[in-house]
Amino acid sequence: MQTHDIDYRSEAVNLRGYLAFDEKPARRRPGVLVFHEGLGLGDFVMARARRLAELGYVALAADMFGDRRQARNLQEVADLVGGLRNEPQTLRARGRAALATLAALPQVDANRIAAIGFCFGGSVVLELARDGADLKAAVSFHGVLTTRTPAASGKVKASVLVLTGADDPLAPPDQVRAFEDEMRAAEVRDWQIISYGNTLHGFTNPAADGSMMRTARYNEQADRRSWASMQNLFDEVLR
Amino acid sequence: MQTHDIDYRSEAVNLRGYLAFDEKPARRRPGVLVFHEGLGLGDFVMARARRLAELGYVALAADMFGDRRQARNLQEVADLVGGLRNEPQTLRARGRAALATLAALPQVDANRIAAIGFCFGGSVVLELARDGADLKAAVSFHGVLTTRTPAASGKVKASVLVLTGADDPLAPPDQVRAFEDEMRAAEVRDWQIISYGNTLHGFTNPAADGSMMRTARYNEQADRRSWASMQNLFDEVLR
Repeated sequence: MQTHDIDYRSEAVNLRGYLAFDEKPARRRPGVLVFHEGLGLGDFVMARARRLAELGYVALAADMFGDRRQARNLQEVADLVGGLRNEPQTLRARGRAALATLAALPQVDANRIAAIGFCFGGSVVLELARDGADLKAAVSFHGVLTTRTPAASGKVKASVLVLTGADDPLAPPDQVRAFEDEMRAAEVRDWQIISYGNTLHGFTNPAADGSMMRTARYNEQADRRSWASMQNLFDEVLR
Repeated sequence: MQTHDIDYRSEAVNLRGYLAFDEKPARRRPGVLVFHEGLGLGDFVMARARRLAELGYVALAADMFGDRRQARNLQEVADLVGGLRNEPQTLRARGRAALATLAALPQVDANRIAAIGFCFGGSVVLELARDGADLKAAVSFHGVLTTRTPAASGKVKASVLVLTGADDPLAPPDQVRAFEDEMRAAEVRDWQIISYGNTLHGFTNPAADGSMMRTARYNEQADRRSWASMQNLFDEVLR
């Protein structure tokens, strides 16, 4: 497997992504964007990118904060995430810059690209889907579901898969229901929501032990199930 | 594969189930109960029982109405289903009679039994789970989620999987949410809900074309996805 950093830009901001792919196949392969949590592009999403490369995808872990900035505490998370969520056009532009970067790679079949995201990254994925980005699938793992810019009718192209903890305070039942209503109103062609019982925020991340954020906690079962559901969807739409 | 009818009783009622299994393996295998829709035990669940037998399970399609009675129209469905839903103890007793019958078969490992159900059968499965039946998994396909007898805390042993159409008028969002609350209140160890967008009632049944019931309609994608999710859960808990 090859892994290396990859620089790209959105407006004046330098973004430093992380690419992972199996160098052996000669043919073009489906690509998967991986959007990081509020802490920034770190070990967690890099490991996920490598797992995707093992599955045969070309994976690009995107940098949403610029210069691969990492948050050191919850206040920095709130500042970085809040800044982007208050500027959905900037957020979408950065996401689209990652998509364009991945699509332009010689290993990648630009017609078969999906995006996944974790926590903050989940909301990035959904924003790209709402924006009508050319994605076959948009998969949110414990992402925030609310938006300032709901999908317009007929705009979403991606198959949408939301994987959420039933006890995640960042995606409470009212917001799940509002998201369903948004999908219906926008006549999204393909969407599904999986809700895992007894599951908090951050369930995919083994480092989530409740210490940094009381309501984020790893759940091995939900982690495994959600990854399998993502793979099932990719088998449908990326093969 | 062997298939044959199998008679059993609950109280004074004769129940005529349908058994399907691969006769080759000598060892005891996991068993799966299949509970029928409001129309009664017919071709649809018999075909599902055979699919389960192909997967290596001993499958018993249970008869909930007695003498394998079939409803001929919606009024008969309403009478048969309403009668049992108004008598949850009778409903649970008939479901338990099927469970005892399957568990007693020489081909079956009585410690590894799951139950699935469609429409009315989905609610039967959930009633058995609420009743604390010895099931490894309880899977409801477009089942009714409401109950007169909510689960008591700690009583549910089964891993619960609810597969529901987001536009199913028999399981509207308020009832899905109430079901989630029931699962939380009962401290059910393992539960998950999958909601399929653009999906009505009866999505697993190719015969559901909206003619008998306007709001029941086959959805090939949701059918395939829901069956795969059931298999994934069985791979976890029955192997």
